[in-house]
Amino acid sequence: MQNRIAGKIREVLETNNANYFVLYSGSNNADFYYTTGFRISDPVFYCAGVDYDYLIVPEMEKNRALKESNVSGVLSLNDLNFSENLKELKDAKKALAQTLLEFLKSKKVKKLLIPPDFPSVFSFYFKDNNIDIEIVESPFSELRAVKNEKEIQYIKETSKAVISGFEYLIKLLKQGIRNCDELRDKLELFLFSSGYIARHTIVASGITTSDPHNVGKGKVEKHLIADIFPKNKKTGYYSDFTRTIIVERDEEIENMLDAVIEAKREGLSLIGDGVLAKDIHNAVCDVLEERGYHTLRGKSREGFIHSTGHGVGLEVHEKPSIYINDEILRSGMVCTIEPGLYYRKLGGVRVEDTVVVKDKGCEILTKYKDRIDLNE
Amino acid sequence: MQNRIAGKIREVLETNNANYFVLYSGSNNADFYYTTGFRISDPVFYCAGVDYDYLIVPEMEKNRALKESNVSGVLSLNDLNFSENLKELKDAKKALAQTLLEFLKSKKVKKLLIPPDFPSVFSFYFKDNNIDIEIVESPFSELRAVKNEKEIQYIKETSKAVISGFEYLIKLLKQGIRNCDELRDKLELFLFSSGYIARHTIVASGITTSDPHNVGKGKVEKHLIADIFPKNKKTGYYSDFTRTIIVERDEEIENMLDAVIEAKREGLSLIGDGVLAKDIHNAVCDVLEERGYHTLRGKSREGFIHSTGHGVGLEVHEKPSIYINDEILRSGMVCTIEPGLYYRKLGGVRVEDTVVVKDKGCEILTKYKDRIDLNE
Repeated sequence: MQNRIAGKIREVLETNNANYFVLYSGSNNADFYYTTGFRISDPVFYCAGVDYDYLIVPEMEKNRALKESNVSGVLSLNDLNFSENLKELKDAKKALAQTLLEFLKSKKVKKLLIPPDFPSVFSFYFKDNNIDIEIVESPFSELRAVKNEKEIQYIKETSKAVISGFEYLIKLLKQGIRNCDELRDKLELFLFSSGYIARHTIVASGITTSDPHNVGKGKVEKHLIADIFPKNKKTGYYSDFTRTIIVERDEEIENMLDAVIEAKREGLSLIGDGVLAKDIHNAVCDVLEERGYHTLRGKSREGFIHSTGHGVGLEVHEKPSIYINDEILRSGMVCTIEPGLYYRKLGGVRVEDTVVVKDKGCEILTKYKDRIDLNE
Repeated sequence: MQNRIAGKIREVLETNNANYFVLYSGSNNADFYYTTGFRISDPVFYCAGVDYDYLIVPEMEKNRALKESNVSGVLSLNDLNFSENLKELKDAKKALAQTLLEFLKSKKVKKLLIPPDFPSVFSFYFKDNNIDIEIVESPFSELRAVKNEKEIQYIKETSKAVISGFEYLIKLLKQGIRNCDELRDKLELFLFSSGYIARHTIVASGITTSDPHNVGKGKVEKHLIADIFPKNKKTGYYSDFTRTIIVERDEEIENMLDAVIEAKREGLSLIGDGVLAKDIHNAVCDVLEERGYHTLRGKSREGFIHSTGHGVGLEVHEKPSIYINDEILRSGMVCTIEPGLYYRKLGGVRVEDTVVVKDKGCEILTKYKDRIDLNE
């Protein structure tokens, strides 16, 4: 285990008077990948103790786990009693539960910590067999929220690719390509060939933009939202960036865009170490409401109907959440500020930057002008 | 709900005397996508009752869910008490749990069915609040195992792309490209530009092939394993295909390859409706053991150290499992047969086809010759 992770695990185990923290997942789970450094698509058990952590994997993965992972120990299901348990219980999940239970009992485990999303099939089985279970916020999600220099470097790299992708999109628009699907396909291929996976990239226009997560289809109309959030194939780190492009003049849309740009700038200006995330969300709502737009704060179903932002890292949405909860921004966190306005009869607009929180202020990683008019 | 799904849900609810089956996931979960037809990256609640099913989503997703999903009803967190719960409980997961609990109580739910991987944070909360919880095998996973005509067509399309990808790889090898990473990058880009996402494609050579899931790196040596399993970007369906290419003569590797080809043919010859999956696995092990190789059956750590195959569909690994458990193959299932042999001092070989189970026999979807010698 890396020192920072080991320290956090020790703290969480001691605070809760428990023996192990357990995950059951594959490397698509960012917590799992963060702590093990091991790429595997099917889920496996990971058990972290005070100064030792284990991966428990199928036999076919054992050697690779020994070579490629950061964990202290690797056991295969063959090292344990899995085959016999499967023959007896005739159900792979139950046999896995029984196998892990035997492992935990051999380690004299009395109390186990699990993350909120730990599968019920295992937690129920352990509980029924006299293991005390407690759900705790994953220690890794908390660690992951504050990035180290290397991680910030990775997100900077992805941010650069995002801006190149956006510039490529502008080029395609200037060449006269006016179909959202074609633009998205070309943009995703451009990103893929630069080493990035981009899926469900939003290239949306017209009335479809009134749904924030509509990926868009058909003809480009008077304005276009491009929301680009690729993952680096090697490092696994995301960035997240949105701009609204004015294709033809439209006063209502442009007024909404001006409001959203002002709200984003206000949000960015407030970021810093120790700031309450909800103060930023409220300031963003204030700007929009002052200009006569609606927000979720007023229980409106139109207007600004999502949160102000979210953390970005190994997941495109991770901690912190910049919304109405009591989270505090810390230096080294990477998050988005992305106000938007959505009206069913008009469509929607959004601008978004990914930034690193600093002791004072923040550094914008997706630096690009806010207002883009295709005809200028 | 589609009729087939509604019928299955009704059957499972009535058998277990329960009111709802609940999922908490996004569309990366194949069960969720199969039943809702809704693409969403962050997890949400899906509740299926006897003749009505609901999605419970953030306000920003509601209109899209109404338009794009197959469910009978969509509620937003704003329609329920989420914001107030979040203010009171100060924890998004707990507030979600409380919000769903209130919804379940309003529907007079006494007993809830959950899938094995349902998050413990919710199952514990519901249990603590007098909802009876039972874990059942997901009704969707079971339905998904048997494909309809449209699904088989989708997997056929992906299989065609896989074969084109493999032929492209052979072309690159014949052009003299001899680096595994370069071959993988070019192959994945080729697939992406044809509309397929391929990640962690195995293009492995030399001793790295002794770990079945080592993706490979560095120089191409005497033999190369290509394991290609892309997902169609539009349909979401996978196919899975492996061949071992002889680059230079190597008697031990070629003998292993001959054994694996014979084992695969034996496995394929046994497939049909009503066949016990473990009989196929055992027959495959028999062929390999008769030729003097080791299998997991003998608790060996080398030789054939994985299962014979797995279902393929919206997930690359899904039901049925062709291994030592009591699963029965049914007409319309799509699965792989993929024996392999792995020795730490020699390396590994594997051949794999994806097939549709028929009343009698099977149809191979990834038809391609088994033995490929680059110099022939």
